[in-house]
Amino acid sequence: MGTTTPQRVGFLGMGLMGSRMARTLLRKGFPVTVWNRTRSRAEALVADGAKVAATPADVMAEVDVACSCLSTPAVLEEAVDGPDGLFRKARAGQLFIDFSTISPTLARSLEERARRLGVDFVEAPVTGSKNGAEKGTLLLMVGGTKEAVARCSGVFAAVGEKAIHCGPVGAGAQVKLAGNALIASMLQGLGEGMLLATKAGVDPAKLLEVVQASGYRSPYFEFKGGALLRRDFSTHFAIDLMHKDLTLFLEAAAAHRVPTPLAAAVREVYALARAAGKGEQDIGAVITVLEELLGTEIRPAS
Amino acid sequence: MGTTTPQRVGFLGMGLMGSRMARTLLRKGFPVTVWNRTRSRAEALVADGAKVAATPADVMAEVDVACSCLSTPAVLEEAVDGPDGLFRKARAGQLFIDFSTISPTLARSLEERARRLGVDFVEAPVTGSKNGAEKGTLLLMVGGTKEAVARCSGVFAAVGEKAIHCGPVGAGAQVKLAGNALIASMLQGLGEGMLLATKAGVDPAKLLEVVQASGYRSPYFEFKGGALLRRDFSTHFAIDLMHKDLTLFLEAAAAHRVPTPLAAAVREVYALARAAGKGEQDIGAVITVLEELLGTEIRPAS
Amino acid sequence: MGTTTPQRVGFLGMGLMGSRMARTLLRKGFPVTVWNRTRSRAEALVADGAKVAATPADVMAEVDVACSCLSTPAVLEEAVDGPDGLFRKARAGQLFIDFSTISPTLARSLEERARRLGVDFVEAPVTGSKNGAEKGTLLLMVGGTKEAVARCSGVFAAVGEKAIHCGPVGAGAQVKLAGNALIASMLQGLGEGMLLATKAGVDPAKLLEVVQASGYRSPYFEFKGGALLRRDFSTHFAIDLMHKDLTLFLEAAAAHRVPTPLAAAVREVYALARAAGKGEQDIGAVITVLEELLGTEIRPAS
Amino acid sequence: MGTTTPQRVGFLGMGLMGSRMARTLLRKGFPVTVWNRTRSRAEALVADGAKVAATPADVMAEVDVACSCLSTPAVLEEAVDGPDGLFRKARAGQLFIDFSTISPTLARSLEERARRLGVDFVEAPVTGSKNGAEKGTLLLMVGGTKEAVARCSGVFAAVGEKAIHCGPVGAGAQVKLAGNALIASMLQGLGEGMLLATKAGVDPAKLLEVVQASGYRSPYFEFKGGALLRRDFSTHFAIDLMHKDLTLFLEAAAAHRVPTPLAAAVREVYALARAAGKGEQDIGAVITVLEELLGTEIRPAS
Repeated sequence: MGTTTPQRVGFLGMGLMGSRMARTLLRKGFPVTVWNRTRSRAEALVADGAKVAATPADVMAEVDVACSCLSTPAVLEEAVDGPDGLFRKARAGQLFIDFSTISPTLARSLEERARRLGVDFVEAPVTGSKNGAEKGTLLLMVGGTKEAVARCSGVFAAVGEKAIHCGPVGAGAQVKLAGNALIASMLQGLGEGMLLATKAGVDPAKLLEVVQASGYRSPYFEFKGGALLRRDFSTHFAIDLMHKDLTLFLEAAAAHRVPTPLAAAVREVYALARAAGKGEQDIGAVITVLEELLGTEIRPAS
Repeated sequence: MGTTTPQRVGFLGMGLMGSRMARTLLRKGFPVTVWNRTRSRAEALVADGAKVAATPADVMAEVDVACSCLSTPAVLEEAVDGPDGLFRKARAGQLFIDFSTISPTLARSLEERARRLGVDFVEAPVTGSKNGAEKGTLLLMVGGTKEAVARCSGVFAAVGEKAIHCGPVGAGAQVKLAGNALIASMLQGLGEGMLLATKAGVDPAKLLEVVQASGYRSPYFEFKGGALLRRDFSTHFAIDLMHKDLTLFLEAAAAHRVPTPLAAAVREVYALARAAGKGEQDIGAVITVLEELLGTEIRPAS
Repeated sequence: MGTTTPQRVGFLGMGLMGSRMARTLLRKGFPVTVWNRTRSRAEALVADGAKVAATPADVMAEVDVACSCLSTPAVLEEAVDGPDGLFRKARAGQLFIDFSTISPTLARSLEERARRLGVDFVEAPVTGSKNGAEKGTLLLMVGGTKEAVARCSGVFAAVGEKAIHCGPVGAGAQVKLAGNALIASMLQGLGEGMLLATKAGVDPAKLLEVVQASGYRSPYFEFKGGALLRRDFSTHFAIDLMHKDLTLFLEAAAAHRVPTPLAAAVREVYALARAAGKGEQDIGAVITVLEELLGTEIRPAS
Repeated sequence: MGTTTPQRVGFLGMGLMGSRMARTLLRKGFPVTVWNRTRSRAEALVADGAKVAATPADVMAEVDVACSCLSTPAVLEEAVDGPDGLFRKARAGQLFIDFSTISPTLARSLEERARRLGVDFVEAPVTGSKNGAEKGTLLLMVGGTKEAVARCSGVFAAVGEKAIHCGPVGAGAQVKLAGNALIASMLQGLGEGMLLATKAGVDPAKLLEVVQASGYRSPYFEFKGGALLRRDFSTHFAIDLMHKDLTLFLEAAAAHRVPTPLAAAVREVYALARAAGKGEQDIGAVITVLEELLGTEIRPAS
């Protein structure tokens, strides 16, 4: 990706991902104005050089590019199109990049509303976990017009290792949701296998060793399988968020009349975890529901 | 893996995998006697230097090590313990390696029966597809006593790139079944995502590109995703066989009281494909059931 | 239920159910003003004594009680709160009864908005199929305040055999959705059993005979099982509508964090039917997707 | 059903059902010789007039008709064809009726083996719970030749209210398994609905009231729904047994290539219950797994 003269950047949402992405932008020389519903989480970035704004509209008043990374559609809607939303002080020619994971339908609606204000909208949901956000090595799934996407190159180069232009707005969201559904299936498939191995008296570390020596190996299995064996459930991606993404995936599937029996089944696994009060835990903990029913924990032999 | 003076090897089952493994053994200097239910498929290896035997028992009469790679438990039982089965002419001190994918229970039963005859039994289900069988680069999931497994080193070094000793007999089978269930979930997850993308007007090649640029990339996605985009459904692994393996996985899960909702859901996808008469097609074709219902084919944009 | 002096009734939505309910009200002496998006379907009731209004607002202008029975939330929203919606000409003291199957959330939102206008809102989703609508023998699942529900007694007595007051607004919707999810599971359970019986060479009529002689017999099995054996798929309840109701059920379940694995699985069966283009067919036809894959039809022996 | 001169009856298996059926036969005037693996449970019937035999073979030596009602295929096989099995002392002309729930395949195998000994075999799995066994009002799903079934009329009239001849041996088993899969779906469908209602603040008794006023009402919903509301989980039918029956149903479905996604999903619910150590509890308790995860119990409002 090419580089450009640092644009003045605004960033809405100082959560797990947003705060790290904003810090990365600051580190790479962008002037950044931040906003967060709970103001203290925004002020935590002042030490890194960030300016804090009182409302999304105030952010928009002083930047070239507004970015957002928010956890739910409702929060995003409010921050964008609410009474103090960024659209309230938008000017023709500005750029708005949303990094949240939302439905293709909402993404298209945001683009449409931005267009009426003369604002270019680009969706760019990300993957790469909080580590990638910290290091600026995220993978971006981009949707937008060629022209609008070209204007994002500076910001994308700062926060991401790679930006894949998937098509018009909505395409990035669709790819992102499919990717997350795939992740959920991979994790659940590995978890079921490791739990059955353990219960059957077989070292689950051997299953992981085989997987990683095979043609279906994946860095993700190394990452999550290793964490399962160490019982490290520190939160990279919360069960509630994955449940939301699986729900969005199933809604898109229903809208297009595509049956997705695997995604439906895996969403029910997340429903069990949420029922058990684990919604804020990492998706690695989803298998613990079955473990607790069984009274058996995945555990390496040695 | 170390090497040993070439043992006289017998090989039962000249299917997709067995015939290629036997040829690899011949190429690497082992004298090999082969047997197959349909004799012509055994005689096809005479040109490669194989000797053909009329029955499994006749194979056993003249080898140090008997190997088998057969498609169903019933065929295996007959070849091993039937009226002309290899156990009929087994001698104390022989070695019997089974490469088939069977249940842990059947594997343990074979070991027990072999032990009574003074025969060492080792299970070694394989992964790596027919290409790996041809090149001798399979991955072996080994179960057996340390002593018995040590005796397999020559054969294993010939057919496999890596042999992972998973534990006693049964452990290899358990790991293999879990691995196949994981493969089925990965493939179905990718297929659902690519089909929804296509139906939603998004290039499924973009999804594959994102997956392969991400932390959840896998050589398997490249292999199968690429084949899906090219609509190459040449058979590497038949739907009927995967359905059998998922059934064995679910049986083991039921025996150990482990709930495995994802594996249960994915097995039903294979049930749809079998209902549609696709049992002998490659597992890559499992998504075509949904495609045909929808009247939409996964297809890259260009 | 008691009776009252005939109220002037308005009715929005002349679909399968609404047109029959409106005719029943006319037959029982209520003056009825009807409205339908496609006007011709409203005019079809003029012969029965109905007056036709141009907009929902116009209906509201001349009635004591407005009723609605509409197929989707979007259509209902428009008819109620759109530019020509009934709320536009609502007067304090009027009564608004919605017979549609909607989410508890939407029902509560309608009540809230009605309250601001001084209008009493009652939800009363129905079951009993078009026959019940025609004869006035529907079962009503009522939600609302005691006072508001009491005001509905005349209308309820006309269209229904029984009205069960389930609780405040939202309770009727919740009960209705759970009832429909149960119906879908019963029908699919029967269909799977009859299809397997047929494929196994067993007369599916014997299964139905056993079911109906057993403690788990149900008039519904007689109705739908008999239709399946006669291959009578005339539409009483469309697959698309049941899919919508299962979706609303799953949304409510997600909102309350209740796992509902059966409902999730049965919704995927409806997704298969919709993918196959059967969305407008009767739910009895949902099993035909599996039949067509198998090339086997449920068929009695004789 | 007609009546005949009391045949000398043998009965294998004094479990929940068998002991009650044997008592009913005694009460109705049949001389009955009983056997049970744990002898004390057979001796409990001496007070009712039963004679106790030491082995199934000894039973067969002195009866005209041997009956069995055993919990698992393995126990049945042993009692029938083991070293002391009833086949050991079978005489040409005898009749053997099996009331167990087994696979169609095993039923046909028993018939084949009986035929070689000149023994008529009839399958007659039952439904109606322990109450029906006690009162002699069971429903029998009969498979066998016309001639063999005719010979069962006396016994059937004693233990059952109705015997439905479903076809040749195997047909009764197939119908029985389909019926049980249907029961499991009905119960789970009701449970999910009642649990969601409760969690949503709606009285689950209202759902049951609606169901029972509707066209999809069933005595089974009254029986089990009422028990759920009273939290009466006394064992009529154990979770382990239903799980076994669902497994047999899925095996038959796989053998005939019939996809049964609902049955597969409901079996996983039973897998959760078994994982939680509830295998010996009544199937009514299957929903308690979800209740415990949620920390919410189905409970009527008042």
